[in-house]
Amino acid sequence: MKKAVLLLSGGLDSSTTLAIAKSEGFLVYALSVFYGQRNEIELIAAKRVAASLGAAEHKILNLDLRLFGGSSLTDQLDVKVHNEQETSIPNTYVPARNTIMLSLALAYAEVTKAQAIFFGANIHDYSGYPDCRPDYINAFEKMANLATKESVLGNKISIRAPLVNLSKAQIIQIGTNLGVDYSLTHTCYDPKERLACGVCSACFYRHKGFMDAQLADPTIYYTG
Amino acid sequence: MKKAVLLLSGGLDSSTTLAIAKSEGFLVYALSVFYGQRNEIELIAAKRVAASLGAAEHKILNLDLRLFGGSSLTDQLDVKVHNEQETSIPNTYVPARNTIMLSLALAYAEVTKAQAIFFGANIHDYSGYPDCRPDYINAFEKMANLATKESVLGNKISIRAPLVNLSKAQIIQIGTNLGVDYSLTHTCYDPKERLACGVCSACFYRHKGFMDAQLADPTIYYTG
Repeated sequence: MKKAVLLLSGGLDSSTTLAIAKSEGFLVYALSVFYGQRNEIELIAAKRVAASLGAAEHKILNLDLRLFGGSSLTDQLDVKVHNEQETSIPNTYVPARNTIMLSLALAYAEVTKAQAIFFGANIHDYSGYPDCRPDYINAFEKMANLATKESVLGNKISIRAPLVNLSKAQIIQIGTNLGVDYSLTHTCYDPKERLACGVCSACFYRHKGFMDAQLADPTIYYTG
Repeated sequence: MKKAVLLLSGGLDSSTTLAIAKSEGFLVYALSVFYGQRNEIELIAAKRVAASLGAAEHKILNLDLRLFGGSSLTDQLDVKVHNEQETSIPNTYVPARNTIMLSLALAYAEVTKAQAIFFGANIHDYSGYPDCRPDYINAFEKMANLATKESVLGNKISIRAPLVNLSKAQIIQIGTNLGVDYSLTHTCYDPKERLACGVCSACFYRHKGFMDAQLADPTIYYTG
């Protein structure tokens, strides 16, 4: 059976990506990296999603990126309320985050002899995140195919980002068709009392996605 | 002042690379990653070397790659006695190790606004390690220049492996000329009572390097 490693944050995108990998017939090895983000609720969501969608294995790695800082998700900075006029890279960008995540996934893929790494990168919502762009993903794949013992043995790895060009509404539609239970997922950058804040960019795009897809948003938002 | 991040294991190669970066006028931010290798003595050596050679900062990150396994340095496998007839990739290869290390260095480089990442990769001694080859290093550099917010702002990063084509004797000669105190460094894969074993591949190449350079080896070897 073909195998894939999947980066699973427990959010909407990575959960949908897990469902896609399963629908393509992959045995899925899920990897969640706890990098010191405030958002520990995501990891609880990741465990629920991995169990619900039938990951073959789910590994959780602790990696404290607060050592480097440089992001509102690792430092004690405020996550901003979503602003549609904002065009610069948001302060939720974590330096080299996807490169670190994909590198760890590459180690896991080599050990499990997986042929693919799936991750839920998407260029639309966070167009400012450099490490979600197709050019970046292709460059990572080229590097990965020179990096490992498996690559020397001729066993290629592909880096798959099936959501990269989809809108949030399209992602939700695909996931719903594949049976993803989005009530298990967690998206918010800045949860209050373990509930989604409803006002950060992550909450904004998630809720808009459900509205655009004309589907009910199962998220319970914090109302103070 | 120009800045560089340096991956510092506390071994001979990375210590020499630190001296080279300093000699080129870089302010050096050293990063040691403790990845669950048995060899904790390396980290003590890394601290001594960073202080001795004047790193501007020295960060130590814990990252337990035993989660994935697949190497004698992370699992409970025996490190083999050096065998000159052996041509396959040795079991000391750690899956995706340099990719993970360089990715973490990339995060550190972005936060410190460093223009270069130095690391002590070398193709000769461990010709089987895929992630020490120039093609791999070039591919990592291309990927890194698409990965970060700094790269989007036009601030390029270069991945520097100044030892990549040098013999161990040449490395030791250069380091000696730059004032590296090799008695502070630690190389052995399989130390006994905190002393170098003298028989693993790392010890073999280190000692041969000193002999070829016609310099005294300051290493204290375990004699049982």
